[in-house]
Amino acid sequence: MQFVSVYQRYRPELEIVESLLYDSVGSANVKLSESSQQLLKAGGKRIRPLFAIICSHLGHPQSRHHVYSVAAALEMIHMASLVHDDVIDDSSVRRGQPTVKSLYGDRAAMYTGDFLFARAIRLLTEITDFRIHQEMADTMVRVCEGEIDQIRDFYNWQQNLRTYLRRVERKTALLISISCSLGARASGCDDETVEHLRRFGYYTGMAFQITDDLLDLEGDESVVGKPVGGDLQQGNLTLPALYAAQGEQGPELQNMVHAEMEHSTLEAAVQIIKDTDAIAVTRSLANRYLDKALRELGQLSPHEALDDLVTVSTFVNQRSY
Amino acid sequence: MQFVSVYQRYRPELEIVESLLYDSVGSANVKLSESSQQLLKAGGKRIRPLFAIICSHLGHPQSRHHVYSVAAALEMIHMASLVHDDVIDDSSVRRGQPTVKSLYGDRAAMYTGDFLFARAIRLLTEITDFRIHQEMADTMVRVCEGEIDQIRDFYNWQQNLRTYLRRVERKTALLISISCSLGARASGCDDETVEHLRRFGYYTGMAFQITDDLLDLEGDESVVGKPVGGDLQQGNLTLPALYAAQGEQGPELQNMVHAEMEHSTLEAAVQIIKDTDAIAVTRSLANRYLDKALRELGQLSPHEALDDLVTVSTFVNQRSY
Repeated sequence: MQFVSVYQRYRPELEIVESLLYDSVGSANVKLSESSQQLLKAGGKRIRPLFAIICSHLGHPQSRHHVYSVAAALEMIHMASLVHDDVIDDSSVRRGQPTVKSLYGDRAAMYTGDFLFARAIRLLTEITDFRIHQEMADTMVRVCEGEIDQIRDFYNWQQNLRTYLRRVERKTALLISISCSLGARASGCDDETVEHLRRFGYYTGMAFQITDDLLDLEGDESVVGKPVGGDLQQGNLTLPALYAAQGEQGPELQNMVHAEMEHSTLEAAVQIIKDTDAIAVTRSLANRYLDKALRELGQLSPHEALDDLVTVSTFVNQRSY
Repeated sequence: MQFVSVYQRYRPELEIVESLLYDSVGSANVKLSESSQQLLKAGGKRIRPLFAIICSHLGHPQSRHHVYSVAAALEMIHMASLVHDDVIDDSSVRRGQPTVKSLYGDRAAMYTGDFLFARAIRLLTEITDFRIHQEMADTMVRVCEGEIDQIRDFYNWQQNLRTYLRRVERKTALLISISCSLGARASGCDDETVEHLRRFGYYTGMAFQITDDLLDLEGDESVVGKPVGGDLQQGNLTLPALYAAQGEQGPELQNMVHAEMEHSTLEAAVQIIKDTDAIAVTRSLANRYLDKALRELGQLSPHEALDDLVTVSTFVNQRSY
């Protein structure tokens, strides 16, 4: 099964989520509506809603309405964190589109993020299952902690694999994990199914972010929508960089990377990393997480939705954007 | 009854809220714990928790535990919005203390705000009354909208009284209003009582913010903890400025106020405002809101807690800091 066919199959449901998103970001304030809609239009793969929807098919069809609210809330929380990142990183382009920050200024971007958080919470208050609220709030807390951890780790070459994986977890895996578990929970799946899907989402999210970190080095700028080596430029040391730092040219690499690094130095630093087997090692770690994700699905009774999860999970791990 | 005596009386309960606040902002991330604690230590009047606690005394004593969670959540949401404001306004001092932004940088301040929002929501998920969640989420949405409205209105001399009052509502009145209504709701007050207290809080909050806007012009910098004329400097046109702009020296005032204004120009602009009866007119508007607030309390059966509300409400309207 192709990823595109899976997308097609869930398109009607993704469109329900899309309308919910547009409805939710509407505001009497024209600027706020515009800035939020700019974020929506900039798109993204809507991978979190997709996971939530697919997982909900393992439950009862009649609770479908809540699944869409959960999916939309997850996407809004994700968008809120991106818009805040753009303020801090001073980013003018994301996914090849101008950021809210560049179009409307820092202040509007900051409050657009806060507004999206608030709207996401508002959407969730329609759901009466308290475990959903608590899981969501716990995840938000941990995601914020991860963002602060990241500050501590900038330009820190002493960090180890564990530190890196913990950041990957908080940056991406937790939100994909909760997309799966809440999609399942909201459609009344039993606790065991919810647990397997939570872990499936967690491992998939780990593979997803590690792949993202590879794309930052290997990707084609015109396809990925952001400049090559951006993480390195920011001092965000990902596994390929940390691995290469242990190699022969490690000390040289560490000296090259600093906030005021020239573009040519950045290119040379990326080349040093590529000259080691850092890319292969990192790719193999992503594959190991993907395997773990798929093994979780193997624990559940066969179901068409599980095949779709395999397709999506495999795709996000092999994608080039 | 003196304000200080009221504070004393509720101190044991305010201390429960204070411990809840400290517990809630604890994190494995040292920097995050430090930055949040810095915010807590910087203090503030804890006026929102105080209103919530006093109002809860009109209900049933046995639901007291939830009142403290509500009070702490309200204070955390308030603190989160302040820390985000400091990032955007590039403020290094608030209430005479260094801001999180100045101590830990923009990035940490941004995520500390997000973290506090998430923690506040987490605390609220322990409460099973869904009206509380919905009111809180609705208020957060409207507060964010108000913050974006404020951007639109910067340096805009064409705005009218209505625009100003709407900003005051969103900036302060809504959160004080919900402090009162949720304090009452969480302790099982009937709908009519909740409604009167909501309106009491609303009108008190209007008076509170209008008084704040006066203090920005009239206050003693060493007592208020921020520079005189700060609103004007930022282009935040409050009622005294808008009123003075209609006067004889109005055109001159409008020409003086811009982002790069010198300190001496700022002082001259403040003087122009003081030379009109803008201060008296604004003061009388604050008093009118205070009267409306007290009239709401008059609709309820006599209760000691109502006397305390009168004391606090009168104090915040007459304070000099």
